[in-house]
Amino acid sequence: MTATHHRSTDGPLTYRRAGVDISAANALVGRLRALAAATHGQQVRPYGDAYAGLYALEAPPGALLAATCDGVGTKLLLGQLLHRYRGLGQDLVAMNVNDLLPCGARPLFFLDYLAAGRLDGEALGELVAGMAAACRTISCALLGGETAEMPGVYGGDGLDMAGFAVGFTTEERLPRRQAMAPGDLVLGLRSTGVHANGLSLARRAVERAGLALADTPPGLAEPLGQALLTPTALYVNDVLSAFERCDGGSLLRAAAHVTGGGLLGRARGLLSDGQRLRIVLDPAAWPRPPIFDVLQSAGQIAESEMARTFNMGLGFLLVATPAGAERLLAMPDTPWLGVGKVIAGAPGVDLGYTRSDERS
Amino acid sequence: MTATHHRSTDGPLTYRRAGVDISAANALVGRLRALAAATHGQQVRPYGDAYAGLYALEAPPGALLAATCDGVGTKLLLGQLLHRYRGLGQDLVAMNVNDLLPCGARPLFFLDYLAAGRLDGEALGELVAGMAAACRTISCALLGGETAEMPGVYGGDGLDMAGFAVGFTTEERLPRRQAMAPGDLVLGLRSTGVHANGLSLARRAVERAGLALADTPPGLAEPLGQALLTPTALYVNDVLSAFERCDGGSLLRAAAHVTGGGLLGRARGLLSDGQRLRIVLDPAAWPRPPIFDVLQSAGQIAESEMARTFNMGLGFLLVATPAGAERLLAMPDTPWLGVGKVIAGAPGVDLGYTRSDERS
Repeated sequence: MTATHHRSTDGPLTYRRAGVDISAANALVGRLRALAAATHGQQVRPYGDAYAGLYALEAPPGALLAATCDGVGTKLLLGQLLHRYRGLGQDLVAMNVNDLLPCGARPLFFLDYLAAGRLDGEALGELVAGMAAACRTISCALLGGETAEMPGVYGGDGLDMAGFAVGFTTEERLPRRQAMAPGDLVLGLRSTGVHANGLSLARRAVERAGLALADTPPGLAEPLGQALLTPTALYVNDVLSAFERCDGGSLLRAAAHVTGGGLLGRARGLLSDGQRLRIVLDPAAWPRPPIFDVLQSAGQIAESEMARTFNMGLGFLLVATPAGAERLLAMPDTPWLGVGKVIAGAPGVDLGYTRSDERS
Repeated sequence: MTATHHRSTDGPLTYRRAGVDISAANALVGRLRALAAATHGQQVRPYGDAYAGLYALEAPPGALLAATCDGVGTKLLLGQLLHRYRGLGQDLVAMNVNDLLPCGARPLFFLDYLAAGRLDGEALGELVAGMAAACRTISCALLGGETAEMPGVYGGDGLDMAGFAVGFTTEERLPRRQAMAPGDLVLGLRSTGVHANGLSLARRAVERAGLALADTPPGLAEPLGQALLTPTALYVNDVLSAFERCDGGSLLRAAAHVTGGGLLGRARGLLSDGQRLRIVLDPAAWPRPPIFDVLQSAGQIAESEMARTFNMGLGFLLVATPAGAERLLAMPDTPWLGVGKVIAGAPGVDLGYTRSDERS
């Protein structure tokens, strides 16, 4: 716990006078810890005045730990502007745990780093409550975190956060990318909107068009700010079910969390180097969330630029063998959509008239 | 990889025009990745366009994963002021991996989050080079990280970083705190200076006394700024050796990384709730680094306030049975110092004339 808060003073210096109010910070940290404790299953091991969170593990041979680190980028600024923090807590968890899924890893635990110019108990409480709720949804322990008050680093209202997640997988569960072949199918899970990527472009487009975040532009069912802040979907349960349904991943060939690089970039990343394979996506196969039309029109953004920046409505992609795809699409109330296929050809992606190999 | 950089523009918006120069950011990230790759042992598993770092594990029953998250607080500001970044990389690793040691955990891997107003390749390169060197010293993989350029969050030269470490331990290795008894001995490892705690108080004291960071006050062998920036010691190898020498920890009773709360607070934390035990430390038993005299005199800081803020020369504490202590002190070239003992009495710490139970 690092906590600093500068004030001017005379007389002998104490740590409190130098700006560090340990008892106020401790009270806040106590509240945040209680939120985290509600996410602890029996694998989280209490141990005295622990310096580290402890998580019990029973690992078979071939066990692999998967670890990710990510923030939410400038989506944070939008949340601050609108004083909406709880959803950002889910964004932070989702951006990390969704990145564990392409290798079939089940999230074990999550830790957060919160740093601010001053500790705003209400905002931080909302953030951690959002993280804890997201962690409970996916049976992941919020194992620890660091709350740092650093006015010299962050301005008065400055705030940043980072997340770290660790998951468990095995060699056997890793999708067999090298076995991908023409005829394999691409399945997708819908996104809830922009998630936490492309927000700089989105904000710039909105500013440029003179739109207000409180406006509800034609096509949107809610104000623009609220639409942009919709929390990133948690794909853990759906993707882990897909691994089970596909014999522990043996019928899967590749997977992607659609983040930086957008749908086009991440679809391209499904292909391994040296494979003469091409991904063909059918844009009519999934609904395009209206927020993307609003942003495209506001910023006069080219379709190809949209697809290289935003998820365009698909937040997670899976390449499965025909047998695997059949099983997933036959699941009752399946969330999976058949969105494309793998063909022989020059490495790249076709997305309607937008092609990834247009990029120089 | 989140990377944003705002510029004004006309014409159709592209992500680059909205401020995101992906190729420049990718070049930097490539350099940082090469530094990290030099720390990868055979347990780090390459896997395609990986979203998560993968670390192979062979775990016995009773296995526990330990995880920490920490930053370096306002030591960062001092490093920026003096354009010295490499040592801060070691600080970040040390603040995290040293926190794994009280439960006997061997660090497996480390991840970093670097966020800045603009990506200064030289500074970030130095930071990650410092992290990579520290990781190599302790055989820990620098498994991944996130580099975020967020000018809306951080000012032009604004910068923050957070670290995250995961270690491996077992139920059997956890020091048996409940078995601590009068006659047990307290051993310590020397610190290299203030490490990364109390820097806000230190900076305030220096300002107040009108000292310049380039000055070399009496008693110091180097300029003040350099002394304050001395990297945090890495205790991994010494502490893990102590666990081995003490039969996998069975002769150890408690351990502490001396950070926030200072020597007094962390010594107090060695005691479990409800134990009628008292820690008596002998300040003559270890050298007091001269930086502490300089800071105390500059800020007219009371001795008790010093001991509740700074490590006072001891960066790591271990409580061992008499038999365990004997083994550690008999090691050839032992780094361990006998610094105190456990006695029966009201829970608290005696440190010369400074007592932890003075605190209301």
